[in-house]
Amino acid sequence: MENIKLIYGIRPVLEALTAGKEIDKLFIKSGFNNEKITELIKLAQKLKIPVLNVPAEKLNRLTKGNHQGIVCIISPINFASLHHIIDETFRSAQNPLLLILDRITDVKNFGAIVRSAECAGVNAIIIPGKGSASINADAVKTSAGALNYLPVCRTNNLLSTIEYLKDSGLQVIACTENGDKYIYDTDFRDPVAIILGSEEYGIHPQYTKLADSTVKIPLSGKIGSLNVSVAAGIVIYEVVRQRIYNLG
Amino acid sequence: MENIKLIYGIRPVLEALTAGKEIDKLFIKSGFNNEKITELIKLAQKLKIPVLNVPAEKLNRLTKGNHQGIVCIISPINFASLHHIIDETFRSAQNPLLLILDRITDVKNFGAIVRSAECAGVNAIIIPGKGSASINADAVKTSAGALNYLPVCRTNNLLSTIEYLKDSGLQVIACTENGDKYIYDTDFRDPVAIILGSEEYGIHPQYTKLADSTVKIPLSGKIGSLNVSVAAGIVIYEVVRQRIYNLG
Repeated sequence: MENIKLIYGIRPVLEALTAGKEIDKLFIKSGFNNEKITELIKLAQKLKIPVLNVPAEKLNRLTKGNHQGIVCIISPINFASLHHIIDETFRSAQNPLLLILDRITDVKNFGAIVRSAECAGVNAIIIPGKGSASINADAVKTSAGALNYLPVCRTNNLLSTIEYLKDSGLQVIACTENGDKYIYDTDFRDPVAIILGSEEYGIHPQYTKLADSTVKIPLSGKIGSLNVSVAAGIVIYEVVRQRIYNLG
Repeated sequence: MENIKLIYGIRPVLEALTAGKEIDKLFIKSGFNNEKITELIKLAQKLKIPVLNVPAEKLNRLTKGNHQGIVCIISPINFASLHHIIDETFRSAQNPLLLILDRITDVKNFGAIVRSAECAGVNAIIIPGKGSASINADAVKTSAGALNYLPVCRTNNLLSTIEYLKDSGLQVIACTENGDKYIYDTDFRDPVAIILGSEEYGIHPQYTKLADSTVKIPLSGKIGSLNVSVAAGIVIYEVVRQRIYNLG
């Protein structure tokens, strides 16, 4: 647990929330409940900070201090507003390219994807508040620093975020091993958001269903699946190729 | 040093070599020299097994046994003959696609590259005997088992191997950040071997010089370089795309 910055105790955590500190996650002891905690959870939800109920042992492992049943992890990055990103991208006459990462919990894969995205000119990464890799010092390191440049947007409701992206004029395309057609047979030249899922769970069917189309990368070997950060690089760069040469 | 299989002591190592066991590396205590050792080194060189002179401390860390100044690491895979691979590929009317990895020492990057290569139908990976990642249990795991399927060829002289590939009718293309043109402007449809270098050192200039051409992946961000396993995936799949659609 090196390099993790923590705040613990009811009052310090409440102060951190009110002061607008960027918080990655809020851990509360399971079953812990009183007026202050209820107030705190409400505030966290309003601020779209993930709240996780955990056993007391988890908190004891995080800190030896008197945590009073509550610990929050400070994020090393500032989260961005998706609305703001979309507005800005369209306003500057750019052709939006967003990545949605569903349940990618491996910090190294997450960091590597952010690095490739930054190199390729992706406008932002969208992650769900829960079930994503911790954006910690390791993630920043694996991203080769790209997390300091590429906006990351966090959402508490990926379904409504996908709806919002579609309403904003973006095609939403799910990239999965069971995709309907090859990435090469898909036109990525218009504004697009690409969904990628974890190697373990893939993309949740409710997101695939909501997507405008599903695509796959051709596989001809015996292994049958690519590392997710490699797959991300391949599909992002197919978008880059089509946009450079204006060939869909 | 878990999961590493070792043989140590002069006689056992000599027996392993004579029996044709697949050996990853041979460590000999620096300055250690006698008739048996000279014989052993000659045999190892004949078998193209990398011999490394190391301080006694390195050997003591590898094993607590009585190593007598010599330890060899058993490889979990069988190395393949490049001549055989080239012959087989042409004979079966395939269009060879080979990867040459120069000084890629990170086991995870190496494993991830092998995985992508297997998925894309690459015919073989070529590595130098010295200065490559150890092909150990970690490499096999990161490759998702691809190391059990994809042939790996080891060479003691990468320069002459590149010459051999050119003489065999393959284009040799170096993929580097300083490449002359984009991968998309290069025709990969004919037999090709692609050289990739480590993130730290890149490709050695003598190999780049010998290559038929140099290519790069477009970068538009502030980071300025991709993870090498992601870069490998992108360039391998550009070959796949061109070959599927017969578009160079």
